[in-house]
Amino acid sequence: MPAAFAREEYQSRLKKVRDSMSERDLDAMLIGDPANMNWLTGFDAWSFYVPQVMLVLHDHDPIWMGRKMDAGAVSLTTYLQQASIKPYAEDYVQRAGVHPMEVVAGYLCDLSLQGKRIGYESDTYFFSPKSLACLQRGVDGVQWIDADLLVNWCRAIKSSAEIDVMRQAARLVEDAMTVAYETIAPGVRQCDLMSKIVAAQVGGNEQFGGDLTALSPLILAGEAATTAHPMWTDEKFIDGQTVALELGGTRKRYNAGLARTVQLGKGPQTVFDTATAVEEGLDAVLESIKPGVLAGDVHRAWQTVLDKHGLVKESRIGYSIGVGYSPDWGEHTVSLRAGEETVIEQNMVVHVMLGMWLDDWGMEMSETVAVTQSGAECLTRFPRSVPVID
Amino acid sequence: MPAAFAREEYQSRLKKVRDSMSERDLDAMLIGDPANMNWLTGFDAWSFYVPQVMLVLHDHDPIWMGRKMDAGAVSLTTYLQQASIKPYAEDYVQRAGVHPMEVVAGYLCDLSLQGKRIGYESDTYFFSPKSLACLQRGVDGVQWIDADLLVNWCRAIKSSAEIDVMRQAARLVEDAMTVAYETIAPGVRQCDLMSKIVAAQVGGNEQFGGDLTALSPLILAGEAATTAHPMWTDEKFIDGQTVALELGGTRKRYNAGLARTVQLGKGPQTVFDTATAVEEGLDAVLESIKPGVLAGDVHRAWQTVLDKHGLVKESRIGYSIGVGYSPDWGEHTVSLRAGEETVIEQNMVVHVMLGMWLDDWGMEMSETVAVTQSGAECLTRFPRSVPVID
Repeated sequence: MPAAFAREEYQSRLKKVRDSMSERDLDAMLIGDPANMNWLTGFDAWSFYVPQVMLVLHDHDPIWMGRKMDAGAVSLTTYLQQASIKPYAEDYVQRAGVHPMEVVAGYLCDLSLQGKRIGYESDTYFFSPKSLACLQRGVDGVQWIDADLLVNWCRAIKSSAEIDVMRQAARLVEDAMTVAYETIAPGVRQCDLMSKIVAAQVGGNEQFGGDLTALSPLILAGEAATTAHPMWTDEKFIDGQTVALELGGTRKRYNAGLARTVQLGKGPQTVFDTATAVEEGLDAVLESIKPGVLAGDVHRAWQTVLDKHGLVKESRIGYSIGVGYSPDWGEHTVSLRAGEETVIEQNMVVHVMLGMWLDDWGMEMSETVAVTQSGAECLTRFPRSVPVID
Repeated sequence: MPAAFAREEYQSRLKKVRDSMSERDLDAMLIGDPANMNWLTGFDAWSFYVPQVMLVLHDHDPIWMGRKMDAGAVSLTTYLQQASIKPYAEDYVQRAGVHPMEVVAGYLCDLSLQGKRIGYESDTYFFSPKSLACLQRGVDGVQWIDADLLVNWCRAIKSSAEIDVMRQAARLVEDAMTVAYETIAPGVRQCDLMSKIVAAQVGGNEQFGGDLTALSPLILAGEAATTAHPMWTDEKFIDGQTVALELGGTRKRYNAGLARTVQLGKGPQTVFDTATAVEEGLDAVLESIKPGVLAGDVHRAWQTVLDKHGLVKESRIGYSIGVGYSPDWGEHTVSLRAGEETVIEQNMVVHVMLGMWLDDWGMEMSETVAVTQSGAECLTRFPRSVPVID
């Protein structure tokens, strides 16, 4: 199985992380986020439902420590050698009285990390309080430094190879949205629409296949349209519903998001008026994005349009997107929000996500956008207006 | 949107949890696992990628505390009233210097929980070390008690209504496996097979639709077959490959698992011999399951057959399965493994998972099994022998 990126690219990523560790005087960095493991080494397996970590050192390849039955996936998907693959026995899996991190603690001791400064991800999904406590007990004298998002911030500026992969992801979501537009209609069950959507996401095109998206595909219809992340049902779409679809395309674990809204049959004028305002806001956002502006500046461009139309939106209007595993494709770094002082830089990629969840209906419009040398490139291309579908 | 179960059922589940809390002298129990939230109240949304918790008290309905844009999903999917829905503002989402659990800590103070004994889930996916630390700082004098799996253990014995839903999930995975058998062949891309599989899982049948499964569907083919949880690729299946498929069906968030193995074209005799031995082992396991036996006894039945055939398997042969969100459908409670002393009881449901990952190939055979009054009922029904597909 070929690695997703060239070995040199993984080396340059590793250097970024080590530089960031040096700035914070860290001897080691313990990673729990599978997306960070993938980004650093290519590691790709559905193994993150049991404890596993990757350790970054200054003088050794990254070291994966995880369940024995998943060790083969390290060799399969990364450049790491046997000295970088440290398994724990199957008996440690979900067994009362023992914990996999006891074994990992032993490995850290073998690596003479007692008394050192070890950074860790404090707020990631798959590194639990119990895992941390177990390591803290098991390795003497370590200074455990909260270095949450250290690796995530290294991911914020993409390589051109990563953006190429995200362009492929964009093709996948465009195809999925096309299928959605062809399928959705009053009388169609939500699950039958979603069946076609996921088939398109995964099957891909003649050149390449896809994956399930890190964020679940979302259908916002009827009463569920007033909330942001409902799950689909097997109810039928109804004439008159305004339906928002937040979909993605995923290629080599890189996600591109795309949200659109359709009107089934006759809808109130407010739907189309709001869509027009949001589209104007999207244009303003895209015009404002360029290297050097602040994330808060981008939000201000949006807010100006919103104010003009008398609309209100409390939540952020975008975030960094890239490599990601379930349950999220956001990178938890850059947010486009009032007052955010993150400097937008070339080759950042953001999902500009304009979701309006109103009293009794909702709509969404989004694009996945790469920052260019002087502006923004929409990776996703799909008509923005709200079609009426009978 | 109708709740998945009757109100009385949720009340009886809540009583189970409160009784378990009383046994451990807990004033409150803080839940981070979205599957536990769903089981207790029906709460269903793809909102768990941001911090959220559910608090169980002895004298108040469960209280959901989460992101404002997801609060609507609580009303939509549960019986909880406004007094049980406590949102944090959008500004707390992934913003440097603040954390949603600061707001939750304030809510806990409002509920006069200072100085009380609060249980928490220490080893679940979506309750991070930072979340815990933030609560520990924010609420004075609390005794934080590691009560990991308290709710999970309450889930181990299913109601008949839950088993009915899992029978529906079993129908979904049987259909998905049927589609897989009809589609797989040398020359077919893995992603195109998976496209058909997920379409079947989600589209369901005429009576009901399905969901994406909590565990990602897995294809073990070629070199990837030697590891347990590889991701599919867009490579083509090759004549001669032995391919294991671990699939699921998911209905109302309840998962049924089913693994089977197919031989593409001519395969070595060892594949069929191993399959015959594993099938014999599966029969022995199913015969051994009944109320009152220990989980270790069930494993012994398997081991006896394995020894006879000179085969070795290090990992457990099954686990409790039920309601679950990505990334896992296992309930992290009952494990079928040597030495496990959990007593098997009526209406437990286990995924008997016989995965053999050998030096250069692998195979899997599994069933989702409900414990009856006197034995075991296979919820999943699908031919077990390894078919040769040209």
